[in-house]
Formats: sequence, structure tokens, C-alpha cells
Amino acid sequence: MALSTRLTERLALKHPIISAPMAFAAGGRLATAVSAAGGLGLIGGGYGDRAWLEGQLAQVAPGTFGCGFITWSLLRQPQLLDLVLEHKPKAVFLSFGDPAPFADRVKRAGATLMCQIQTLRDADHAIAIGADVIVAQGAEAGGHGEGRGTFALVPEIADLISHRSPNTLLCAAGGVGDGRGLAAALMLGADGVLVGSRLWASKEANVGVRMHGAALAACGDDTIRSQVMDLARKLDWPSRYTARVLRNAYTAKWHGREAELLLVADEEAAKYRQAWADGDPDGSNTFVGEVVGLIEEILPAREIIDRMVEDAEIRLGRFVPA
Amino acid sequence: MALSTRLTERLALKHPIISAPMAFAAGGRLATAVSAAGGLGLIGGGYGDRAWLEGQLAQVAPGTFGCGFITWSLLRQPQLLDLVLEHKPKAVFLSFGDPAPFADRVKRAGATLMCQIQTLRDADHAIAIGADVIVAQGAEAGGHGEGRGTFALVPEIADLISHRSPNTLLCAAGGVGDGRGLAAALMLGADGVLVGSRLWASKEANVGVRMHGAALAACGDDTIRSQVMDLARKLDWPSRYTARVLRNAYTAKWHGREAELLLVADEEAAKYRQAWADGDPDGSNTFVGEVVGLIEEILPAREIIDRMVEDAEIRLGRFVPA
Repeated sequence: MALSTRLTERLALKHPIISAPMAFAAGGRLATAVSAAGGLGLIGGGYGDRAWLEGQLAQVAPGTFGCGFITWSLLRQPQLLDLVLEHKPKAVFLSFGDPAPFADRVKRAGATLMCQIQTLRDADHAIAIGADVIVAQGAEAGGHGEGRGTFALVPEIADLISHRSPNTLLCAAGGVGDGRGLAAALMLGADGVLVGSRLWASKEANVGVRMHGAALAACGDDTIRSQVMDLARKLDWPSRYTARVLRNAYTAKWHGREAELLLVADEEAAKYRQAWADGDPDGSNTFVGEVVGLIEEILPAREIIDRMVEDAEIRLGRFVPA
Repeated sequence: MALSTRLTERLALKHPIISAPMAFAAGGRLATAVSAAGGLGLIGGGYGDRAWLEGQLAQVAPGTFGCGFITWSLLRQPQLLDLVLEHKPKAVFLSFGDPAPFADRVKRAGATLMCQIQTLRDADHAIAIGADVIVAQGAEAGGHGEGRGTFALVPEIADLISHRSPNTLLCAAGGVGDGRGLAAALMLGADGVLVGSRLWASKEANVGVRMHGAALAACGDDTIRSQVMDLARKLDWPSRYTARVLRNAYTAKWHGREAELLLVADEEAAKYRQAWADGDPDGSNTFVGEVVGLIEEILPAREIIDRMVEDAEIRLGRFVPA
């Protein structure tokens, strides 16, 4: 059981599956489990908590993991990239900002440079700065992103790559939660997939039981893209990005009233951060994508990946030309 | 060369491809060409111009075509459904509103009832009222729709159908523009696809040369979902729906300033309608989806469909299990 693609060959993986570097949720434990299952596990470098990152890096073996950064945040603490590179990552993943200032260091260290993009224009730039892998992230994705849907974005980026830089690899992100998504991504022209929400809903993710419970109870209609979570946390996200979360009392109260929220930001930030620390899915938010409607139980990462590959193979095998 | 699915079997089609009933653009000529090419061509019933509709129906043969309606608009002129049923359509397609008031008449007339939905909740209702085919439309689609992306919506609706009504068929809409999209939709669990923009960009569509030109020059990043086109045309669209069009000077001026636009609606409506009549892609709008980035030339519908099926077959055939 294995789907061989350019990604599995180039990165020496068993399966063309990479776990998304989800801030907070994707630590060393999840990265290790995903890599052990035959994919590539990424630690979420998040907003630059050095102590937390050191703790996660202590749990992974050199050459078996990757690390993702929020690029605009990394620009404020570029030394965190050195910390990660010292641990010999297989890949460094950059998203949400210009990867150019970091590209050379990543490549000189021998790591695969993965750049996540949300538009054709950013993909063009990623090619120009030498990305080894472009991750095309659609709006279905949980957490931060932009507006283009996975289904039409992936083939358009595949065409760009084919014209401009045929050796660059392509992964699809946003909406990939099972074997159907993996098979569809390969049909759209991707060499592999990035899996976020489905692995967020794994035993190895750093996610509390109430957050997991909220996700299991939700369908795909129950999410929203908004900026109120970032305003609440007083994070300086560039205005082009929104984050997808489960709708709840918090988004119902503030989405569309961002200017008012800013007026009471200090008070709301304290409340939000406390609710987040408590793992409270009503006072803070559950960061998942539209694929949440396909998730029915919290499983070990290995089982999620095995089922995904097995089902993709069955579906792809069904349409053998007559 | 043929991809056999439950849709091709049930509707006696050669290919699992249905053309979207695009208002104005999808007339009898396009429907005839699509059906002759082995798919099912749908006339766009649009906003209820009886004389126009009669003209289109005069161009199609009984049993070979379908007709789509904007359901909230049909409710104001229900006699248009009788007009269409007299011409023996193979299918009637209802979207944007409650199909319940029309379901029995469509089925009693022996036509296939196709209900387009944008959410899980509406799919549930479509099953309850006896839809034969559910069309899951993602936000990538051109023209009217809602926010959920095709990639995660389709498998979630497939699961709903499998639990609630396994004989109901499923088509994917939104972002399907070539063989990659067709193959991916089948992998996601669809029995076929609805193709809009790619057939809008055909020789047989009722689309002016300047509108076609604007689409050929655009990439997928260049579209926007907005309501300003409906405000400009003084159409009573329910507030949950937006329409995807190419960004232009008009959307740049008014998107986000809807309240101001309403204050000058009479004057703006006259200007917009004149620009639309002139086929002016700057003063009015080009209604296409994100898949516009995959469209490089205006082709005959048959060639579009042949290429789509051929490429899907090649891609599906590549992943034969070892």
C-alpha cells in the first residue's frame, strides 16, 4: 500500500502526506507520529515562543521532521530559524509573508524549502525565490489563509509550475481530510497533500478535549473566516489574511463589528486568552477547516494516514480505462 | 472514450457532464451543442423573460435538454415551469430558493429533478423533497452562490446522500474546467460535474467578444464575490447569495460601499444595464468563476467536452494500483 509521486521520491517518504504546521496544535509528538506513519510531520513554529519550540524540537529526530513558520512573525525573531536548522529538519515551511529573506539559509542548510501560497501571484514569487515545494492553500483550510478555493487554485498553480519551473513540486492544502481528498488532489495536479484539521483531530495533537468535542459535533457549514480572533488575541496579522474557525457565540458577537472590538481590545484580549488557556470552545475558538464535517472520531495519526492512503488507492483504482 | 458513472447510466448520457444553466449565456444553442457532444445541456431560465425562453426552447429537441431556474424568481412566474415542461425536458434544475413548491410538477412530468445546493443543510432539504440529483456548488463558481468550497463540500454531501438516500445522484459544481476537475470530482464522490465558466467560454454561449476577451486575460486571482452587481441591476436576490465576477472598476468603486450604492441605485442601474447591453466588461461585469485562470481560448463546446473527458481518463488511468 503506497502511492508513489514525485513528492515521495524527492523527500523519501512512504506516503505523499505532510501534516500542517498548526500553531499550538502541531508539536513534536504529532510530527513524530506522522513521520513514523510514512508521511512528513511538521512542527508549528507559531508566534515564536522559543521555550515551547525547544521543547518540541527535543522530541524529534534529526532528518525526520519539518518546521513551519508564520513568516511575518519569524521576521521579528529570525534567530528561531537558526534554532530549527540546528536540529536538521528535512523541510522548512514558510507561509504568510515574504519568504525571500529566509530562502538561502534554509537551502544552504540542506533543508527542503516549502512555501505556502494562497494566490497565483504569490506562487510566482515563490518560484522566483527558489521554493522546492509550493503548497497551494485553499480557503477551505482551517486557521489562517485567504479566499481562493482549493479546487481551482491547485490546477492553476500546477500550470504555472509546468510553464515556469517544472521541477518544483506542488502540494494541495485546504479541505483534504480523507482518501477522497488525497485522490482528488493528485487528479488536480498535486504531488501530495498537506493535512491540517484531520490531523488536528488526532490523539497526538496538542488539542484539548472540549475543542475536539466541538469539532466532532460540527458540520462543514459551521465554520467562518474572520479576523476577530486575531483582534481578540492582539496579533498583528496583515489585513489580507483571515482565519477559519468554528462559528460560536464569540464570532456571532464580534464578526462584522471589528471597529467596536478594537475599542475594548484590552479587556476582550484578557478574556479570550483565558478562555483559550482553559480550552473553552465558546469563549475562544476552535481552529478547523470546512473538512470538519468529515471528521467523526479522534484517531491516532497513523490510523488517519493509513485509512487515507488505502481509500485513495481504492478510488483511484476503480477508474481503470476499459 | 467514455467515463461511465451512475449519472451517465441514469440519464443515458455518454459523458457525466452537464452545462450550468447560466442566465443569459446558456441558451438553446449551447444546450444543443452540449447534448450533441454527449453531455446534458441546460438552458438558463434566468429571471423569467418569457419571450427569450420561448426562443431558446424552439432551438432544442424534446428529451435532449434541461432547463434551470432561479427558484426565488420562478416563484413569481410559476407558469414558466409549465412552458418548459411542455417542451419535454430531460431535467429541470432549481437553485437559490426552496424547490419544494415545484418538485411534484417536475417529477410528474417525467423530468429529472436536479436541486443545486450550497450547504449541507440545503442538501438535507433537497433529499427530503425528492431530488433525483443534488448539485453541490462550491464558492469557486462564477455567478451566484455562497461560501463553501467545492473540495470539502462534495464529499460531505456524498456522505449525507450515502446515509440518507443512496439512490440520489451527486454532481460537483464550482471550479470544474478541465479533465483534472472532472477526475477530481469523481474522486471526491460525485457522479458527474456541472460545468459553467468553461462552457461560458465556448463558441455557442451567448457571450459578447469583449466579455470573452476580459476572461481570457484574467487569472483566478482576479475574481470577487459581491452583491454590487445585483444592487446595480435592482435584482431582489436574497441576502445570503453573492455572485462571483471579474474584479473591475465597477467592483473597485462599489464593493464595500453597498449602502451608498443604494442611494444612487436608479441612476447606477440605468448605466449598468446600458453597459451590460453593450457587452462592456468595465461598466458591467464578466460573470465567471475562479476557473477562469485555466481558460486560454474560446472553443466549440464539443471540443471542450472531448478534451475534458480524454484528459480525465488519462489522469485516472495513471494511478492503477501496482
